[in-house]
Order: sequence, then C-alpha cells, then structure tokens
Amino acid sequence: MIETKEASVETLAGIANQLRIHSINATTAAGSGHPTSSMSAADIVAALFFGHMKYYPNDPKNYNNDRFILSKGHAAPVLYAAWAENGLIPVNELVRLRELTSDLEGHPTPRLPFVDVSTGSLGQGLSVGVGMALSARLDNLDFRTYVLLGDGECAEGSVWEAAGLAGIYSLKNLVAIVDVNRLGQSQATAYGHDLKAYENKFKAFGWRTEVIDGHDMEEILEVLAAVGLGEQPLAIIAKTYKGAGVSFLQDKDGWHGKALSKDEAARAIAELQPKATSGIGVHVEPPSNLPAPNTAAPASYPPINYSMGQMVATREAFGNALARIGEADQRVVSLDGDTKNSTFSERFLKKFPARFVECFIAEQNMVGVGVGLGTRGKVPFASTFATFFTRAHDQVRMAGHSQANIKLVGSHVGVSIGEDGGSQMGLEDIAMFRAVIGSTVLYPSDAVCAEKLVDHMVKTRGVMFLRTSRPKTPVIYKNDEEFPVGGAKIVRQSASDKITVVGAGVTLFEALKAADALAGEGINITVIDAYSIKPLGKDVIKAAAAKTNNLILTVEDHYPEGGLGDTVAGELAPDGVRVHKLAVFDLPRSGKPEELLAKYNIDSAAIVRKVKSLV
Amino acid sequence: MIETKEASVETLAGIANQLRIHSINATTAAGSGHPTSSMSAADIVAALFFGHMKYYPNDPKNYNNDRFILSKGHAAPVLYAAWAENGLIPVNELVRLRELTSDLEGHPTPRLPFVDVSTGSLGQGLSVGVGMALSARLDNLDFRTYVLLGDGECAEGSVWEAAGLAGIYSLKNLVAIVDVNRLGQSQATAYGHDLKAYENKFKAFGWRTEVIDGHDMEEILEVLAAVGLGEQPLAIIAKTYKGAGVSFLQDKDGWHGKALSKDEAARAIAELQPKATSGIGVHVEPPSNLPAPNTAAPASYPPINYSMGQMVATREAFGNALARIGEADQRVVSLDGDTKNSTFSERFLKKFPARFVECFIAEQNMVGVGVGLGTRGKVPFASTFATFFTRAHDQVRMAGHSQANIKLVGSHVGVSIGEDGGSQMGLEDIAMFRAVIGSTVLYPSDAVCAEKLVDHMVKTRGVMFLRTSRPKTPVIYKNDEEFPVGGAKIVRQSASDKITVVGAGVTLFEALKAADALAGEGINITVIDAYSIKPLGKDVIKAAAAKTNNLILTVEDHYPEGGLGDTVAGELAPDGVRVHKLAVFDLPRSGKPEELLAKYNIDSAAIVRKVKSLV
Repeated sequence: MIETKEASVETLAGIANQLRIHSINATTAAGSGHPTSSMSAADIVAALFFGHMKYYPNDPKNYNNDRFILSKGHAAPVLYAAWAENGLIPVNELVRLRELTSDLEGHPTPRLPFVDVSTGSLGQGLSVGVGMALSARLDNLDFRTYVLLGDGECAEGSVWEAAGLAGIYSLKNLVAIVDVNRLGQSQATAYGHDLKAYENKFKAFGWRTEVIDGHDMEEILEVLAAVGLGEQPLAIIAKTYKGAGVSFLQDKDGWHGKALSKDEAARAIAELQPKATSGIGVHVEPPSNLPAPNTAAPASYPPINYSMGQMVATREAFGNALARIGEADQRVVSLDGDTKNSTFSERFLKKFPARFVECFIAEQNMVGVGVGLGTRGKVPFASTFATFFTRAHDQVRMAGHSQANIKLVGSHVGVSIGEDGGSQMGLEDIAMFRAVIGSTVLYPSDAVCAEKLVDHMVKTRGVMFLRTSRPKTPVIYKNDEEFPVGGAKIVRQSASDKITVVGAGVTLFEALKAADALAGEGINITVIDAYSIKPLGKDVIKAAAAKTNNLILTVEDHYPEGGLGDTVAGELAPDGVRVHKLAVFDLPRSGKPEELLAKYNIDSAAIVRKVKSLV
Repeated sequence: MIETKEASVETLAGIANQLRIHSINATTAAGSGHPTSSMSAADIVAALFFGHMKYYPNDPKNYNNDRFILSKGHAAPVLYAAWAENGLIPVNELVRLRELTSDLEGHPTPRLPFVDVSTGSLGQGLSVGVGMALSARLDNLDFRTYVLLGDGECAEGSVWEAAGLAGIYSLKNLVAIVDVNRLGQSQATAYGHDLKAYENKFKAFGWRTEVIDGHDMEEILEVLAAVGLGEQPLAIIAKTYKGAGVSFLQDKDGWHGKALSKDEAARAIAELQPKATSGIGVHVEPPSNLPAPNTAAPASYPPINYSMGQMVATREAFGNALARIGEADQRVVSLDGDTKNSTFSERFLKKFPARFVECFIAEQNMVGVGVGLGTRGKVPFASTFATFFTRAHDQVRMAGHSQANIKLVGSHVGVSIGEDGGSQMGLEDIAMFRAVIGSTVLYPSDAVCAEKLVDHMVKTRGVMFLRTSRPKTPVIYKNDEEFPVGGAKIVRQSASDKITVVGAGVTLFEALKAADALAGEGINITVIDAYSIKPLGKDVIKAAAAKTNNLILTVEDHYPEGGLGDTVAGELAPDGVRVHKLAVFDLPRSGKPEELLAKYNIDSAAIVRKVKSLV
C-alpha cells in the first residue's frame, strides 16, 4: 500500500529524471563532479523528498522535519537538485556548482541551510543519523532520520559501529538506504550486485531489512510506506545502476567522478528529457507540530566547592562538573566508549541515566553520534582515553568542517598514566585536536580549572577538547577564579626571574617543584599554567617572557610535535622569543608514573637541569 | 577427532590453570593489570600454545612459525605466562610485570621477541592478522595466523573492515577466536553471552564459524583440529567467563583491570593449584621447513628520467616510482583504498597485480594489513587521499609503538585540490604524522624529489609518510640530485636577501613566483624547499636564515597548527630566529585551485604582501 500523496508514481519517476538532468547540467558546467553517482540515487531521492518525507521545504531547519543525511556526499548534485525542485533554492543556481562564490560545494556542507553536517568522507553519515534518532527519542519528537549510503562506503567500519548501536538501541525511527550501484571509484565493489551480502550484514547487526529495485518507483514507495513497522531500524538495500537512465552511462566503468562534456551532456539529457517532470508545485507533506525541545542554556550553573590543596584528578573534576551541570542544563548528553569508570563520566550516568549514551568500544561512532545530537540542540560530551580519540580523528575533522557543537574529553594523557604502557597514553592528542579547523583545546591542571572549563564548554558552541589527567593533583586555585579561554595563569613570578617555564597538567606541578629547588640555589623562575592551548594565552606568556629576557622553557607530557612547545614557539616565534622545550621525545613504556616522568625528562629534576643549562 | 599431540586434554586444562596462576601472581605483584581478562582466555591460549600451533618456542621469529596476535592486549599476562611455560622466558620473570626495567609491559610490545605488533588499542589485531595471512599466500608458506579478540572490542568497526577483507579474499589460513567473556571494562557488553550475535556477524562477513565452550578443552581442541577446512577464514566464538576458574571472580562485575590483593590472590591460587600443571617439557609441534622468502633489499633500483620543466604531479611521480621499484624489489606491496586512479598506485597494479592489495574503502584496515605485511619482511606502501589517513590515525599511532615498517602515501593535500571541497583536502596530515613516535614525514615538490624519496622509503625501515600533491608542477631538479632525509634545498639565494621563505609542495612554486615579483621591486629573498619535514632540514634553514637577519617566512598548504610553520618555529625557536607563517587559517571551501590559494593567502601574491610587511 502506497501512502496517500499528491504526487503519482509517474510524477515521482519524472522528478527523478529531472534530478538526473540537473545533476548532469551542474557537473558539466562545473567541469567536475559525480553525475553518475547522483543518477543512481535519483529515484530514491525523488521518492523521499517528494513522495515520502514530511518536512517544510521552505523551513529546512524545522525541528519537526524528517532529517535526510547524504552520507555518500559526492552525490551532492542530486541533493542540491532536490532542494531546487522543492523550491528552496533557485533552479538556475544549480549550474554554479563548485564555484568559489556558491555554497553548492563539491560535497555538502552546512553553509547550506538544508545540510546538517558535512559529508564526503565516507561512512560517517549513519553515526550522525543515530545521534539524530536518539535526539528524537529524548525530545519526544516523531521525525524520522533517513541516511543515504553508497555501497562502496559500507566497507568502512564506522558504518558497522553505527549499525551496531542502532540495532542495540532499537532505533526504529532510523532508516538507512544503501544505493548499491556496484561501481566504486577505481573498480567494482567487492560484492557487486550481491544485495544479499549487504542484507545479511544489516540483519546481523540487528536491523530489519528490505531489498528493492532502486529504480522502480512503485517498489521504493511501497517499502518506504512500511517504515516504522517492527521495533528495529530499517535498512533498505536498493539495487541501482551508476548513471541510471542514460544508455551510454548506465552501469559502465570509467565514469566515476567525471563530468560529461557538453556534447555528452546534451545526448544524455535528450534521453532523459522526455521522461522528466518538474517537482515545482508538487505537494510535500508537512511534519507534526510537536512542542520544541528546550535548547536554551540556563542562566547559571551551580557553584563549585573545592579546598586549596585538596587532591583531585582533573578527570574526576570533569565527572563532577558534568554531574553538577546536568541538572541545570537539560541539553547536556554524555557519551561513553566503555571507559566511564576511568573518565568519571559515570557520575553523570548515575544522576541522569536517560541522557547517557553508552556507545561501547567504538569511538568513531561515538563522535558521530555526538555530532548528530549537537545538530539537534543537545550539548554532547563524548569522553574516553585521549589517545583513543585518534580512532575518531576523521570524525573529529569532519565535525570541524560541519562547525559542529561537540565536546570531547580525553583522559589518561601522557606517560603519567604509568604502568598500562604506551598504547594507552595520550601523547599526540594536542597535536591532533589543534589541527582541527575552528577547534578549542583546553588543558586544566587542577580541579577548579577543570570545572570552570567545562562550564565554558557547555556554554559555548564549537568543537572543543578537554585534556584531563589520571594522577591526583592539588587544587591551587580558589573556587571563584576565572579561566578565560585564550588566557594563561602566572602561578609564580618574581622580579628577578631568569626564565619563564610554561607547563600544563602534571608538568605544572613539576615546574613548581623545580621552582622551589632552583630558588634554593638562587635561581628564580616564572611559572605559567597554559590551561588554554588553542587559543593560546599568548599575551600573558609574551609579557612574562619579556621580563625574563625573552627566554621560555615549555614542559609537556606529550610528544614534542604539535603540542604545547610547538604552540608557544609558533605563536611567539615572530617576536624572536627563544623557546626551548621538554617533552616525551622517546618511545614510551610501562613503569610507575614518577619513574616515567623522570625517564622521559619532564619531571622537576629535568626542569632544574634544563633551566640551569639555559640561564 | 583431536590431532595427535603429546599433551593430553587433562594436561592442557592443567596448563590453562597454571597460566591463570601466573596471571594472578604477576598482576598482584604489579599492583595493577587485568587478571580476570587473562583468565577467560587461559584455556584457549593453553590449547593454542601447547596443543595446536606449530612453532619453535625458542625461535619465536621463525618465518615458518604459526603466528599469534593478542588483539585483546590487556590480557598480556596470559601471553607472557604461555611464553614462560613453553620455556622462552624464565617463569620468575613474570612477577616483574609492568616494571620499568622489564619488557613485560602492561600491554604487549615488540620489545619482546615473541610479539610482532603492539596491541592494547582494541580492534586492531585482526587487520594485522589479515596482513600476515596475505604474506603467507605471497610467500607460499603454510603457517597459520591466530588472532585472539575480546568480545568488547568487536564493537570497533576496524574489526569488521578486517573481517570483510578476509572474507573477500578467502583467507583460510586466518583464524579469529573471540573470547566472549560477557563483561567489558565498565559494564556488560551489548550482547552478553548471545554467541549467535557474534556468529551471525562473522557469517555475514564471509567467514566459517564455530561456537564453543571456551573452557571445555576437548571442544576447543576439536574445533582447532578442523582449522583449514573449507575455503573461508574461520571464526571461533568461545563462550567464556571473566575470572574463570576462581569462584569469587568468575563472571562477577567489578573485576575489570583490577589486581587482586595478596590475600585474594592466595585464595584464588588455592582454588587453582590442585588443578594446575606445568607446561615445561610439554611437546610443541614444530612448523614446516619451507624456503625463506627473500627479504633483502636489492643492490640498486632503476634510474629515473625526467626533463627539466616537465609538468608532473608528485602523486603521479609516486606511482611511477612504485612501478619502477617493483621489479627490482619483490618486497614491495601496494595497498589501496579504492583511490588507485587518483593516487596513481594503479601503475604498480598494472605491472605487479599479485603484489597489489585492494583494501576497498576501509583505511583503518588498510594500515593494519600493511603493518602485518611489514612484520613478514614486506615493504608495504599504503596510499589514499592524505586526509583519509586521519581515519587510520590510531592504527598509524600503534604502528609507531610497534616500530613497524610501513610506508603511507597521501595525495590530494591542501586547498590546491580545488573544487572537491574541504572534506577531501589534506590539511592536518603533517600535524598527524609528525606526532607519531619515530615517524618520518616527507613532502616533495617535484617529480625527481618524489621519486628519490620513494627510493629512500623502500630502503629504510620505519613508519614513513609521503605527502603528494594533486596539481602538476614543473620538474626543477636534475635526475641525479640527491635528497637526504633531514636535508633541505636552497632553490634561490643571493647575497642581498632580506628574508628566507620556506615552502614545500605547491607553495614552493608560489614562493619562486613571489621571488621573481619581489626581485622586480628590488627585494631579494632566499627560497628553500623543505622536502624533509621530520626530520627537518634544520641546519640548512638555520644557516640561510642567519644570512637574512634571522627572519623566516614559512608558507604551507596545511592548517597553521602542527605543520611546516610550527615545525620550523619549534626547531629554530631556541635560537631566537623570527619565524612568520602563512597557512590555511580559515575553513576551506570549493573553488578553483588558484582561487583557493589566493583566498587562503598562500599564493605568490600573499607571499609578496607578507614579505613586504616584514622586510
């Protein structure tokens, strides 16, 4: 049974051909792009946008709208064509595809109002869809989330992380559609048109499945009409042809990512035009009118209450902060990769189980789910060991491109974790997170600073990383101390200082110990807490350095590349400030934390030695 | 039917208990570690090491030995115990677990002769196993590869990337054993003891499966005896209990990653001791004695032949180099993520199809497979778009910890790729690869340099990254020019230079254009090609800068964090050299390459402007 819609099967099939024509015209005008990958998906997209999904075409951000994610982002032209044919953007804009001054980019980005997340790095859309589907559940909204995947991208493990979690949580409001067009970029996919191979996988991961002819409009609509049956998410495996609808393109090798010449385009369009119909004026079913979720930040958060000298690990302070903030701010959601007892996010779970998402050991999906939640007004905090975020580097990178709102908290940084050994030590996380466009990188040394930085993270939109440490460290700041992002704290300074030592996290305390030892030998030093790495508290550091003969020593529990030292050097190098660094230069190993700080030359003794060699 | 072995079922069950006792003793001595995760796997490990695998216990590197990978690396104590009970390491060494001066680290590393790769970041072992299994096929060796996984880590998508490829290539010499002990770090896994859930997944990915009781020695041996049947890899899904064998530990929450107190250990061992048997003296079946593969580098490689001014993209030069080297050096294997027509690795495929591994769109697995091939004497070159290596950051990180021999080649870097847009641009790859322990990062500007650097990569062991560019650039070096790693080339210099401009890749040519333009205005500049980023050609740059009033401008098609500019600043900052940088500071977008170089201020005009503002 087909749902009652104003567009007939014939109209929808005609719209699909119109989308194909636009896809060809746009890519030919651009001289590059992916017309044939757009064409295989055209019937599915036409059915979704003009015959099935419920949304306001002129209000793409409406919170009741069904969501659509083009995971196979290279098929951008067919997406743009759909939003032109439903009237949101002018049809004549489509040929400005890929131009510098057009937001119709090579792959979709949220510069466009109808795009929630950047896609184009394959295999990421389903995770975002899981996040959206979870948000609907949290907010009691009835919209559905549709994710269109290519068959080639189903080789990405991230797809199966997402599929796994959707199956585990029975996300029946989530629909994956796999456009099985058989041909990858450089050759046929491993499974070709063996639809059963995809079906078996989704089934094994707990999904309901349907196999269809992706070019049979009646079949597409029939399956879509049955969305929502059962208790599990639905995977529609669609047999399609790359370049479908044009005789000399359909199912042919050598046409991936290739625009047609003007002549070829004319020949192709001559085949399609007689069967094409405009979508303009076709009725699109509006969504429900359910109450909007509260996405406003509260006026304030509860205060904190630590005692000076109290021993608290910053990872624990993070857990405390999340639990403290959670009551006042219902937007906060916590995501875990089965490390909640180490990261202390379990403190949030205990108080707010409904807003805690156990993602199991699948960091890529955890980040993608967080990005999806962020698009729906939530403030997601995803936490695990810092080094395991390397697993999700591409998802974090794409979060940057999406200008997403997601908070990532990485614990167990550096050799100071001790006995577990190198595989568990975050020693590259600063480098990784700094090199994400638009990111903020924060690194507290004590519990007060950690809590205040979490307050900032929840209040401020963006991709933000908080680096927390395993060892307990003393509280050194008063509860009312403020930690502006882009600032730094001078924690020790005298008029006779010979050098400015910049630390953060555990190395701040090593620097303070070194300051005591050096003072005993008549050498005074300035010590700075660089809790804000990106943006760096450059002005504070520069001013302090100016008073110590422009001589700086940075000390970090991180590799020397791209971390605190490089940051300070990079920011101050234009001024000719002399920046030396201590960092973990050698392959780390197991041992006691204090043994390792010594072995890798980032403990107080190493600082003393280095300072003496410099002043 | 059980294969004829000297150890009886009872003996093997007793050895398993001995491994449990060692695991408890070692972790209690260390005061940390994972005894219960070791205990669930003890029967499987005892069966493999003393009743099934063929290997020389005193020659763990023998190329005919069956391979064993402990993907669930936190169960290290049971692995160390097995190699103590088979006589390789003294039993009394086991209690030195996790000590600074012992190589028995918290998670296995190749500091130990019987460990091929570091594990401990979960979900990576199966990819390495795929690489080993492929190497056996290439070398006509009959060893088998056994990978022991935890159930929790099967949530990692990388497991399914590896499982997918093993299924596609029918690696019947590969065996995965999943230790389904039901309990993760912080809670039960999603599937608990639903063994069918795991079985269905492996089946869907093309594996033969067996479900067993992982504590029934007879059943374990029976299934192992049937390894090698059929044409597909075998997954053994073993129902086990965390802490198996000790009443107060078995299947109990709260014991993950926790050492027993001395009293608890004594109680546990009292339960185990009566059923424990030493493995010392138990016969282990030796492997075949097949001819060793040739793992020696050839004396030389064929020469190159470019013409000055010839327009060749460095990505194409990489493809040429690989194809040139492949004949002389049979160790070279090329791995692709369905981008071979863009990275030009297809040139190798055309000549040496047997040594080309299409990994499809699954970069994590591609890197893991490469690491596995590298452990077997191959020289693997894995190539894709540079930015897609972010997907495999954790695998690359662990390759660093493994001190692996793997070559990674990333094309399509920077905004100079143009219209495809931000998601396809490598703008963080230098930062990522620099922060890998022991890595080498190379960035050629012309075809001659690219080819020579590939020669270096194939000849020299280590984790190495080559950054290649999409646009064609002119050949500027003679065919006999040498490019030592850690060097840099002065491509323009005069006695009256006011500033040293350091570029690499496309920005080198922008710097040369800027030099021409500035010379026309009477401003001479030094231009340096920083083809070796890590190690940096520091001495060359420093000497040149000394002649230009210690003033440097770096220009890079990369984000400003952790790239060329930070590298130069970090290396020269101790000397107070003033380093300014041009880089891609803003969120990139689609457009023509030359438009984007201009928009993001890294083209010749931007260099001219910046130089004028500085001199």
